[in-house]
Amino acid sequence: MKDAYEKLQDQWKRIWAIKAAVNLFDWDVQTQEPARAGRVSAAISAELADCLRAAVVNPENRRLLQELKDGVTDPVQQANIRRMQRLYEDMDAVSSEENRALSELAAEAVSCWQQARKKDDYEEFCPILEKLIEAQKHVAAARRKAGESLYDTMLDGYEEGYTQKRLDSFFRTLKKELGPLLQEVISRGDTVPDGFLYQYYPIEKQREFARFLAKYIGFSFERGCMGESEHPFTVAIHNKDVRISDHYYEGALEPGIFSVIHEAGHGIYEQDIEDSVAGTVCGVDLSMGVHESQSRFYENIIGRSLSFWTPLYGKLQSAFPGQLGQVSLQQFVCAVNRVKPGPVRTEADELTYSFHIMIRYELEKRLIDGDIRPRELPKLWKELYQKYLGVSPGSMVEGVLQDIHWAQGSFGYFPSYALGNAMAAQLYHQMCRELDVEELLVRGRLSVIREYLKERVHRFGRQKSMDQILKDATNETLEPKYYIDYLKEKYAHG
Amino acid sequence: MKDAYEKLQDQWKRIWAIKAAVNLFDWDVQTQEPARAGRVSAAISAELADCLRAAVVNPENRRLLQELKDGVTDPVQQANIRRMQRLYEDMDAVSSEENRALSELAAEAVSCWQQARKKDDYEEFCPILEKLIEAQKHVAAARRKAGESLYDTMLDGYEEGYTQKRLDSFFRTLKKELGPLLQEVISRGDTVPDGFLYQYYPIEKQREFARFLAKYIGFSFERGCMGESEHPFTVAIHNKDVRISDHYYEGALEPGIFSVIHEAGHGIYEQDIEDSVAGTVCGVDLSMGVHESQSRFYENIIGRSLSFWTPLYGKLQSAFPGQLGQVSLQQFVCAVNRVKPGPVRTEADELTYSFHIMIRYELEKRLIDGDIRPRELPKLWKELYQKYLGVSPGSMVEGVLQDIHWAQGSFGYFPSYALGNAMAAQLYHQMCRELDVEELLVRGRLSVIREYLKERVHRFGRQKSMDQILKDATNETLEPKYYIDYLKEKYAHG
Repeated sequence: MKDAYEKLQDQWKRIWAIKAAVNLFDWDVQTQEPARAGRVSAAISAELADCLRAAVVNPENRRLLQELKDGVTDPVQQANIRRMQRLYEDMDAVSSEENRALSELAAEAVSCWQQARKKDDYEEFCPILEKLIEAQKHVAAARRKAGESLYDTMLDGYEEGYTQKRLDSFFRTLKKELGPLLQEVISRGDTVPDGFLYQYYPIEKQREFARFLAKYIGFSFERGCMGESEHPFTVAIHNKDVRISDHYYEGALEPGIFSVIHEAGHGIYEQDIEDSVAGTVCGVDLSMGVHESQSRFYENIIGRSLSFWTPLYGKLQSAFPGQLGQVSLQQFVCAVNRVKPGPVRTEADELTYSFHIMIRYELEKRLIDGDIRPRELPKLWKELYQKYLGVSPGSMVEGVLQDIHWAQGSFGYFPSYALGNAMAAQLYHQMCRELDVEELLVRGRLSVIREYLKERVHRFGRQKSMDQILKDATNETLEPKYYIDYLKEKYAHG
Repeated sequence: MKDAYEKLQDQWKRIWAIKAAVNLFDWDVQTQEPARAGRVSAAISAELADCLRAAVVNPENRRLLQELKDGVTDPVQQANIRRMQRLYEDMDAVSSEENRALSELAAEAVSCWQQARKKDDYEEFCPILEKLIEAQKHVAAARRKAGESLYDTMLDGYEEGYTQKRLDSFFRTLKKELGPLLQEVISRGDTVPDGFLYQYYPIEKQREFARFLAKYIGFSFERGCMGESEHPFTVAIHNKDVRISDHYYEGALEPGIFSVIHEAGHGIYEQDIEDSVAGTVCGVDLSMGVHESQSRFYENIIGRSLSFWTPLYGKLQSAFPGQLGQVSLQQFVCAVNRVKPGPVRTEADELTYSFHIMIRYELEKRLIDGDIRPRELPKLWKELYQKYLGVSPGSMVEGVLQDIHWAQGSFGYFPSYALGNAMAAQLYHQMCRELDVEELLVRGRLSVIREYLKERVHRFGRQKSMDQILKDATNETLEPKYYIDYLKEKYAHG
């Protein structure tokens, strides 16, 4: 006779399988689905989303969760029950009909956003953005817990425990410390030669090198594969089937190279979830902040360092002898670390990146509070970019239409990027006290770094919160000072 | 307020989406899934199969089907209700637990079959084959209708209305007519030079040409895509997303070329289902006989003809100038139509192909009847191959272990291939009365042929049975004489 917890696990298996199907569709749509399939596939996805809801919200699960509410003492079981309870509540707050309507609205909005981008016309996107905001506020109102603002509820959906109050303080600190640093760097006016990064780089060669890089940092091709898509991304079907995609530009080397390190960082995290966790409620829907900490740790902290490229640069030169044969290792590393304020988040360097997030944070917070209206966005966007970065977007596509997140209805997601950066720096600080990271990089011993992260971060999946992972690994919850120190050390004094 | 039929359609949408997910997993497993993913993916597939069963077999569907049993007059609605009723009954006959056990047994058997092939050891596979037969007989017993034998029930699962009695007669006719023809061809002892087909053919070039061929015969890459797998296959996620795969051999040209024509034939059929049918119960699980009729029509009747290659051969020569530059069009067409009895079904020519099917038909019929036991198969296999084709398999892999079908628990499937061949010839006979097929082929006007088939066969999906399609298109139900005549005309008199 199965006990209630075992029965809940059986229920979970069904949910898990449907989630895997949803994720596989997500991968497929972006990497190989034929052009004309879109509308029908969207209908299938909406059905699967409803199917998923039905697998979560049903009398059996309600009964089991009620029965398991108290009395379970095993911490792993507790964590699983808590996550399942949360999943249940979040889905129960939105009816099947509303859920479908939301999916359809988001699909329509993404398509409208794509059209608007083609015409560089924000006006075309604005009305549906209004609708999206209202719909998401409606969902948040149904999910909201006592004392939360609507935006708090949204934030909590992406990063548990990170409220507006806490993020206000976090971003205030970043702004106070990084603002002057950025001004200092800009006023130094160093010009870093980077023209060699913008030559003809054959895509076949880039593809080969990207594959090599993913493997080099530790992404397993026995438990994963690589594809190509418009925007690089990572998706885990399960921990033995993790997929990363990249996008290559014929005229630029940097995006393809650093995107693959970024995505492989995400991928390694998913591959390293312990088998005993992977099939449980805590094996999926990992914290986005922790996820970004891993991807950006690999991409930036390690991936743009001199030590990392020391054993690798010769290989890169051999792949592109005409383009890089005359460029030294130092010149290459300088170029990929240049600071240059610009209007586009995904092209931002490490120092300016947080300002892109702050602008979005400030705007979406006010949008949800009802303090500003979508039609004011272009003006406010421009003002904030001018204020923080001293640049103006040359178009809507370079401005308020650049990110897909809001079109997908994802409000409260952007802060995860900044939290991830800070977490990465905090982990790195601790790692340097325990390991000779530079030496490991120079000797190409990436597996030691991966093992370190696996032991402290990856293997737990979502059994631990971001704060708990940091507390256990570094003796502190998230502290922005490590990130600030890291950036100061890297960029101050030229 | 929705009526019962509309409610049934809503229920169907859920089933349809889960089926799409199952199909996508099927595609994925064979074309790109990472090596280590297998076991976990099998667990996901088993969950989705159970999920599918739950979406079909439930009180709501039972109630709706009961309500709709009488009184519906629209023939399209009738066809959908009838198919749904059948689906319900088939799934209801197997409990959720049995369904899971069957999936697991089949997965285990396929894996065992793969291992057994590696060692060329039938003994290793034999015990699980026994179990599979018992399990499938158990399922058939639960599904069986009055007056059916167990094997009848299995056959009906693949081709409605085709009983053992009817197939006995069908194969008897084939054997009687084709046996002497084959003996005649063999005794003529013509030697057709075909060595040029077995040279080094670079895979990249084959891939390119295969893609061209698929498009040439009418497969749409806007509504489909191509991949690579160990065994070529076709899967439809829906009619706007149909996928075909191919397999290339460095040392042989023929398999890659003719497999793609075969699979594109399957693919065109799925792409051509009318939109109004595609989203309904009759838009999926098409008749395997009709499917094979389309694939084999394109592959053999058209694809191996002189007229087909007349406008194309120059292009093939340009792709492989070193290999085919000195080979004439006539030599090429002769070579790909040579008759040569061999032990392997998938490498068989058109004339010997039916004998491969007859052997399997005879054996599986007796296996299900309990007349023979799996351990006797190797001996009987050898005897029948000697008797019908005058050849002996050199190994188990070339013999009884060559096909995956039985390992998957698919008994009653093989006859579909023969039915498909016969149907293709019957359609072709009629087509030639209405169109100048040779002229169309020589002029590369494949779209006219596709339209002809779309109008008469493809667009209906499963709204019509194989017999009904043939009756409406040719004024007769399936008649083997057209197939026999076609083969006689092609192969008699050298």
